[in-house]
Amino acid sequence: MKDQEPGLVIWFTGLAASGKSTVAKEVENRLHALDLAVENFDADEVRANLSPNLGYTEQARDENTKRLAWMARMLSKYGVNVVVTAVSSLRRYRDRARELCPRFMEVQVICPVEVCQQRDPKGLYARAARGEVNDIAGLHQPYEEAENAEVVLRTHELSVEEAADLVMKKAQELGYLS
Amino acid sequence: MKDQEPGLVIWFTGLAASGKSTVAKEVENRLHALDLAVENFDADEVRANLSPNLGYTEQARDENTKRLAWMARMLSKYGVNVVVTAVSSLRRYRDRARELCPRFMEVQVICPVEVCQQRDPKGLYARAARGEVNDIAGLHQPYEEAENAEVVLRTHELSVEEAADLVMKKAQELGYLS
Repeated sequence: MKDQEPGLVIWFTGLAASGKSTVAKEVENRLHALDLAVENFDADEVRANLSPNLGYTEQARDENTKRLAWMARMLSKYGVNVVVTAVSSLRRYRDRARELCPRFMEVQVICPVEVCQQRDPKGLYARAARGEVNDIAGLHQPYEEAENAEVVLRTHELSVEEAADLVMKKAQELGYLS
Repeated sequence: MKDQEPGLVIWFTGLAASGKSTVAKEVENRLHALDLAVENFDADEVRANLSPNLGYTEQARDENTKRLAWMARMLSKYGVNVVVTAVSSLRRYRDRARELCPRFMEVQVICPVEVCQQRDPKGLYARAARGEVNDIAGLHQPYEEAENAEVVLRTHELSVEEAADLVMKKAQELGYLS
């Protein structure tokens, strides 16, 4: 097992409610259908499990994305593919993950914040509108779009299937699903 | 890869400087020699990488051992064997790991605290003697020995090789290294 090919890390970044998790789930299903090992790291779930009191300061975001990258690298070493969904608002958070993981794809999910606010499945933007939270990336804190993402998904213009197609196609083109 | 047999999680618990890491490293080498995939989680290293500011309160220890157990389980799902070294001072920290990991061995490392204080490779007990730290398990905080550990190692009476022999023998007896 030592010289196993590393797994692919697919890192979805984008605003809250931009559609990251929905597309990531579909990509996960397709990898499973290819009989590949795949683990799904949702930043919110990892927070809930590992550090419920971490918060959303820049230091906390930095720590959480570092943790995700570190865990993704560890799993990928053993040939497991990893799908990560994380707002990961600053470019350096994603660049650090890219440096750690030998097979890495950044998927930039783009969706106008107005559309995200309408979707708002977790009620996050509603809480912001009531003044209960003031640390949302793209609203109160900066969100830096990627300049060199392997895949860009405009989720308000694509179906989930179309979006997943683009991710899978790029992974194949790059030789990561051999 | 989906129906792979889970990896074995070998959890070393014991006082600081009791010899956990030294024996764990030897066990790791032996697993490698069998051409098995193995990852070594040292609680201190994981802290340094993932949460340098976590501290050593009971809540922090709880969080760190939970994280270790969670990561060990995740890797073991994919057939990777995991060697964990953590003071993990309370029984419930180790019991939680045992519940999470289908193939689990607890290795209770026992060494009189006076011997640990003499070894003191990290200078921890020296700092305690100078009054700089006051949160050491077995000295200032409780340390609960296991009641049902698969292996008990009295490291002041065993060589590293003898200790590793006992761990490997038990793993084989339990059918975990098939």
